Amino acid sequence: MVIDSSFFINLALKEAWKYQGLTYPNPAVGCTIVSPKNELLSVEAHKKSGLPHAEVMALRTAYFKLTNDSKILELTSSSEIHTFLLNNHNNCFRDISLYTTLEPCSHIGKTPSCASLISALGIKKVFVGFNDINEEASGGTEILKKSGVDVQSSILEKKAYDLIAPFNKWKEDKFVFFKWAQRLNGSTDAGTISSIESRINVHKMRNVCDLLVIGGNTVREDRPTLDARLVHGKAPDVLIISRKKEFDKSIALFGVEGREVFIEDNFSLLNNYKNIMIEGSSNMFELTKDIVDYYLCYLAPTIGGKSGFEKVEEKFEILNIDQEDQDIIMWMKREK
Amino acid sequence: MVIDSSFFINLALKEAWKYQGLTYPNPAVGCTIVSPKNELLSVEAHKKSGLPHAEVMALRTAYFKLTNDSKILELTSSSEIHTFLLNNHNNCFRDISLYTTLEPCSHIGKTPSCASLISALGIKKVFVGFNDINEEASGGTEILKKSGVDVQSSILEKKAYDLIAPFNKWKEDKFVFFKWAQRLNGSTDAGTISSIESRINVHKMRNVCDLLVIGGNTVREDRPTLDARLVHGKAPDVLIISRKKEFDKSIALFGVEGREVFIEDNFSLLNNYKNIMIEGSSNMFELTKDIVDYYLCYLAPTIGGKSGFEKVEEKFEILNIDQEDQDIIMWMKREK
Repeated sequence: MVIDSSFFINLALKEAWKYQGLTYPNPAVGCTIVSPKNELLSVEAHKKSGLPHAEVMALRTAYFKLTNDSKILELTSSSEIHTFLLNNHNNCFRDISLYTTLEPCSHIGKTPSCASLISALGIKKVFVGFNDINEEASGGTEILKKSGVDVQSSILEKKAYDLIAPFNKWKEDKFVFFKWAQRLNGSTDAGTISSIESRINVHKMRNVCDLLVIGGNTVREDRPTLDARLVHGKAPDVLIISRKKEFDKSIALFGVEGREVFIEDNFSLLNNYKNIMIEGSSNMFELTKDIVDYYLCYLAPTIGGKSGFEKVEEKFEILNIDQEDQDIIMWMKREK
Repeated sequence: MVIDSSFFINLALKEAWKYQGLTYPNPAVGCTIVSPKNELLSVEAHKKSGLPHAEVMALRTAYFKLTNDSKILELTSSSEIHTFLLNNHNNCFRDISLYTTLEPCSHIGKTPSCASLISALGIKKVFVGFNDINEEASGGTEILKKSGVDVQSSILEKKAYDLIAPFNKWKEDKFVFFKWAQRLNGSTDAGTISSIESRINVHKMRNVCDLLVIGGNTVREDRPTLDARLVHGKAPDVLIISRKKEFDKSIALFGVEGREVFIEDNFSLLNNYKNIMIEGSSNMFELTKDIVDYYLCYLAPTIGGKSGFEKVEEKFEILNIDQEDQDIIMWMKREK
């Protein structure tokens, strides 16, 4: 195994993918910090909107490793950590290297930008996966270079782009992903397929989605609730794709507070939303091929059940695989 | 992400799993070397019988990182590296930590034992995943402790055991694994399923297997060769499980030099072999449930084809997942 800048960016990428989708409307970003001699100080990710950026989290962990000053571990908000680091760094970061999957932001909001923080801490080497193309936050590399930081860009750029693509879609238009759960033999029927960890993960996704799309037959047959109760989260609006408009409105799905449910025979409503999850099987898969950006598959290591994807012919590119407890979580896109 | 002894053992485990099966008759072992301040110096694995042990490979890479003396990179044989390190280490390893998935061997063969080498190099901290239960090579911990090395055992012990289990089976009796290739929708039919990288990997496996078991119908329908031509390797003996003894002997399978082909209606022949791969689908899966130790699945990220595992009900525990180019490679065992 070669331990080089790609290795360290890859650690950051793997960590960031664990929170893909969950960071909406922010990008999924990972950050690794390493000492002059490849001493691995931290690998962290941005986990959720409102929580610190990946670089800030990685600097927080690295500061503790370098100084043994546990005061910083009590701080959780981005502005507290920023202020603390600026006041207490004592040049401890001077010789470290920082690897980030996305160009550090130049955006000054509730906290100073990550690029300014990195410069102010006297960090001299930054490795970047993909350069930010979002106007509001880009320009971080320029800020760094002006302060004399040696910035190397485009490390594992393609992989870093795949990680950030949903964010770019949110910014430009909307991000649509198709989620399904299946067993190893491809079956999607008959009872619970996924582990409780996977189901919690799906509820976290629903909590940050603004629209959930589902087929009419699934609603009629499975009578699902489609909320985020496992994480006490917000239930997204639901679009039921169905020609027939009649449904048993006593199903829990229709009774969730603060949610709108639409019944339509087309997908034009998607244009009113930004972060959209489609749940389904063969039919919905075929119907939505041209509007789906990414595919998210929860694969249970079991064999059983009968029907799954039928009459579908498809080739995917795997973007990331992860294993949470039992199931494999795969992010993919169609190979074009 | 927590960067601790489990993290470093896990890096070694992941690296070792890439060579699972291929190290026969030796164990699959991985080794990580880290400086006093978590400086990651090397992650290496034992790759093949006749090549150096994981610890020797990791010490070789770490030596180069620590000294910048590239002479060691020209050495490939275990005895050359042993001798070079003993003559040139100059106490450069004194403060490092060595993480190994298996207790370092005490076995003196063509080279001194890894345990003796580690002691002689003045290494003071060794972390071990699983203690060797093989009489010939065990006792490494004792050798280390007698030399004043601080040995911590049982780091991620269960995972380290899963890695070493095939080796223990080879030693005690025989190791039997069931290999199949499938698409994401569970289909195993119609044309080439796996990527070229996966097929090369299978040929490497065949090259070190001494027996390959296959069903009569597969031989009649697919007319496979079942050799290791993609790696210019040795073709294993073949056991065809079939009640009917008639086969078209002009199939390439029967004409491979140095191979024996048996046609039997039972599995008793397996007792004459040590490293056995079964290839098949539903029927063979059901027939061999009680004799298979591990399952190896090459999962292609495609949807297509029709039939796969039918009428099978099974639950696996995933031991390792890896991605080679396109396909996912999964080692599993039945959950009992």
